[in-house]
Amino acid sequence: MVVEIAEIDVQAGHEADFESAVERALPLFHAAPGCHGVQVLRGVEQPSRYTLFIRWATLEDHTVGFRGSEAFTRWRALVSPHFAAPPRVQHARSVLGGDAH
Amino acid sequence: MVVEIAEIDVQAGHEADFESAVERALPLFHAAPGCHGVQVLRGVEQPSRYTLFIRWATLEDHTVGFRGSEAFTRWRALVSPHFAAPPRVQHARSVLGGDAH
Repeated sequence: MVVEIAEIDVQAGHEADFESAVERALPLFHAAPGCHGVQVLRGVEQPSRYTLFIRWATLEDHTVGFRGSEAFTRWRALVSPHFAAPPRVQHARSVLGGDAH
Repeated sequence: MVVEIAEIDVQAGHEADFESAVERALPLFHAAPGCHGVQVLRGVEQPSRYTLFIRWATLEDHTVGFRGSEAFTRWRALVSPHFAAPPRVQHARSVLGGDAH
């Protein structure tokens, strides 16, 4: 399992529209091979910054499968009009931790 | 619920020692009032970069309670010798999403 961490700064005033666009796009991820879930967080210190955590079975499910699919084109068409800058994307793997109480 | 997102670049060659230090420090978080779990991810593109997701009941449980506690001093004593730079910390709240399949 690999986690895609995507940091997206949206244009000021576009926050509600961006969230609606992401909500409409969620089925694209839910239907994508290897996608195990999307979590969307909004910044406290920077409320126009969103962090998306998207869990993939393998790195290639994201970088090859999803990015090469029609679903990626539709995803970007929905959300990119609200971007203030290109998203910063990295991948990471869980090494430690879990729930506490 | 608020998520602390801490990005920590460690010194090259210190990865194993950093992970051991974090593991030893986990009980400090598990015992901290309002802390609901710690997840530690290691970067794929940048293997000396770690991202910690720490869930807190409230922002102040982290910024006031934990940072003002003896546990924070012990946490930093364990991990800071491995830092390549000061951690970048932000907070965020979940707005959308969940598990897929």
